[in-house]
Amino acid sequence: MEPLYVIKIGGNIIDNEQALHDFLATFASVKAKKILVHGGGKIASELSVKLGIEPKMLNGKRITDAAALDVVVMTYAGLINKKIVALLQSQQANAIGLSGADGNSIPAQKREVADVDYGFAGDAVEERLNTDFFQLLLSNGMTPVLSAITHDEHGQLLNTNADTIASVLAVAMSAFYNVTLVYCFEMQGVMKDISDAGSMIEQISLREYDILKKNGAVSEGMLPKLDKAFAAVAGGVESVMIGHAKNLVHIIKQEKHAATRIIA
Amino acid sequence: MEPLYVIKIGGNIIDNEQALHDFLATFASVKAKKILVHGGGKIASELSVKLGIEPKMLNGKRITDAAALDVVVMTYAGLINKKIVALLQSQQANAIGLSGADGNSIPAQKREVADVDYGFAGDAVEERLNTDFFQLLLSNGMTPVLSAITHDEHGQLLNTNADTIASVLAVAMSAFYNVTLVYCFEMQGVMKDISDAGSMIEQISLREYDILKKNGAVSEGMLPKLDKAFAAVAGGVESVMIGHAKNLVHIIKQEKHAATRIIA
Repeated sequence: MEPLYVIKIGGNIIDNEQALHDFLATFASVKAKKILVHGGGKIASELSVKLGIEPKMLNGKRITDAAALDVVVMTYAGLINKKIVALLQSQQANAIGLSGADGNSIPAQKREVADVDYGFAGDAVEERLNTDFFQLLLSNGMTPVLSAITHDEHGQLLNTNADTIASVLAVAMSAFYNVTLVYCFEMQGVMKDISDAGSMIEQISLREYDILKKNGAVSEGMLPKLDKAFAAVAGGVESVMIGHAKNLVHIIKQEKHAATRIIA
Repeated sequence: MEPLYVIKIGGNIIDNEQALHDFLATFASVKAKKILVHGGGKIASELSVKLGIEPKMLNGKRITDAAALDVVVMTYAGLINKKIVALLQSQQANAIGLSGADGNSIPAQKREVADVDYGFAGDAVEERLNTDFFQLLLSNGMTPVLSAITHDEHGQLLNTNADTIASVLAVAMSAFYNVTLVYCFEMQGVMKDISDAGSMIEQISLREYDILKKNGAVSEGMLPKLDKAFAAVAGGVESVMIGHAKNLVHIIKQEKHAATRIIA
């Protein structure tokens, strides 16, 4: 099967104009078929503050009320998405910016209210993901650029986790392509010790991950990303890597020490 | 040739939630191939005020500095575009929201600095409009929804007039489709007397338009829209109409008194 790269770029890179430009230049230079999934960064929070919209958090998760949804739609699907698309176009990548509503690419379900109502937050409906649409764009030379906004197919936009979108999309596309999923962020990879740049873990299996978790050897913040990475491996994605945005070229070449590889 | 409807919806309809819902339900029910072009409404101005960004106007035209550009990109290509797309999706229209940067659909040029620097304002480059891309989407059952944000192909987003985009797009697509261009807004059509609902002009030729202009019989605000409508007729668009958003069904059926028809 033909290779396809699904690459997720995190908020800290988006917040740094130079880092973002450099990353996009590298991303555009990847000749294979590719999809970019981007997070939001601080811009949405900063805009909320300026507008006097108090960010509401519970158990470390954002509660998305109607005003907060408007802000994330504006910033993720609007400002950030279009800036990335324009920059990629200037680098000869025929980018097309999408939310999950566009072309019904990623149908989602509002998160069910159990103890907490997280508001207009949604989870992608994996089996309803519109793979035909992505194939149409890819086979016509286009590079989809996905913001983490989805919809419920009944007119409601939903705020969705970008790491999850990347994982679910990589799994769904694995039916048609040899998919490599890369989580790019501001660290070398999964670190044993965040303060020690030499402590990157080269490779983690699910068994090792369980041990690391029990020992508390992986930072809290990494756990959700790793869970999604393992979900992708379990779902049939050929190759899953977590590494620094500036190392994308080396990661794609599958060079040693370029990133942390996630294996079954 | 197969029919194609290029429909522009103005700001006053977008500002009214019920009017927008009603319009989109009607638009979605149009079975023929169709493209929606939307303006911005008051949301961008309101957001600017909340953010303390002073709107800069000169000779009745907005000057788009970097901060103002961010606001229009957020609201036009983000909030408004995605809301429209989600609503159309809920009405079984497979909408795909686009700026002119997406798929390089509408390359534009920054308006040249003569007496006044209008900032990041651009004009579509008519002959570079990506008709292949629109045909690909249309022939795959999709309905493009265009916000009036374009790009210069060198990484810069530009604020562009939505009426102009609709006109230019209608002309370009006339090479492949039998195009009807409809400007939908909050009036019955072009009125002889705005205070008299019965004064709608059924049909205007270019010769009559010149006379109306000389007599001052058409309101100032209508002139740019009429100029674009006549440009579309001159460019080979089969049918050009200006009418009320709520009359879209009647306009498309080409019923009498449904709207003002623009003729050569």
